[in-house]
Amino acid sequence: MGKVFLDMAVSLDGFVSGPNGEDGGLHDWYFAPSGNATLILDELLHGVGAMVLGKRAFGDQPDGFDTPYKVPHFVLSHAAKDTVERDGATFSFVTDGVESALEQAKAAGDKDVCVAGGANVAQQCLKAGLLDEVQLHLVPVLFGGGLRLFDHLGGQRIELERTRVLESPGVTHLKFRVVK
Amino acid sequence: MGKVFLDMAVSLDGFVSGPNGEDGGLHDWYFAPSGNATLILDELLHGVGAMVLGKRAFGDQPDGFDTPYKVPHFVLSHAAKDTVERDGATFSFVTDGVESALEQAKAAGDKDVCVAGGANVAQQCLKAGLLDEVQLHLVPVLFGGGLRLFDHLGGQRIELERTRVLESPGVTHLKFRVVK
Repeated sequence: MGKVFLDMAVSLDGFVSGPNGEDGGLHDWYFAPSGNATLILDELLHGVGAMVLGKRAFGDQPDGFDTPYKVPHFVLSHAAKDTVERDGATFSFVTDGVESALEQAKAAGDKDVCVAGGANVAQQCLKAGLLDEVQLHLVPVLFGGGLRLFDHLGGQRIELERTRVLESPGVTHLKFRVVK
Repeated sequence: MGKVFLDMAVSLDGFVSGPNGEDGGLHDWYFAPSGNATLILDELLHGVGAMVLGKRAFGDQPDGFDTPYKVPHFVLSHAAKDTVERDGATFSFVTDGVESALEQAKAAGDKDVCVAGGANVAQQCLKAGLLDEVQLHLVPVLFGGGLRLFDHLGGQRIELERTRVLESPGVTHLKFRVVK
């Protein structure tokens, strides 16, 4: 069975979006990759067998969204909805929580499960000890406000082990193993 | 004239001390350096001509503290006190703010000025655009609470440029230039 990992881009001050909800350039490396970013994207594309994401990260897109990841996506949702298929990717809506979403994602195959955000889902996964790895794409900007990735963790100390550091233009890719 | 840089150790979730004010292992690499940490410490020791630090970072030590940095230290203080000398290092107390402390530190020589914390002084320096560089020693642990380094910056976007990444056992040393 593959591992469960969080993959998110963050500002140097730890925000996944800016004061007005804007991306603020955090994903520029993703949309126009160069250097090691190309390697990272290739690794994700070939390694990820299923995606888990939150309601906000999924957004208001009843028919799914265009993605290069032709894999099952499990979207946390308050309302039950039928699974939608879009150009090879499926989007299933999970109403009974993140653990259930992760179980369904793991059952989808042998590859890795990527928790792709948002911050709230990431926090739930961290608090519940559901992650094997954390990959952060650290963008050298201070937003000074916005939505924090590491917040509401409840004073629980979580040890990690750095397993890889790669530099691309405008972003540093940091990979950690969660010590359990 | 040398540059002004911030140098601090932070947890992966951005804290400079834990929920109970504890160091939490953030400076283990400093006290028992190995690998590139040795290089970093050597660079600091030879490159720093003066230190600026806040009242809390200085602590309750009227006679100064033991330090390998035999340079002038400028300590932000509410109360005027005489400069104290301790084993080659001097500690002067500055009552008229961080800009004044930095001016005095710059006037102390041609080497670099290190802002060594705490978080409050770092934030004042960032907000006022007083830093040329930021060096962070990123320790792979989530504290889940504590004193945040990047906080109270007032929604101001600050661009940086990554200039170096070095890995040591248990810590990643990230260096940035502040884009002005």
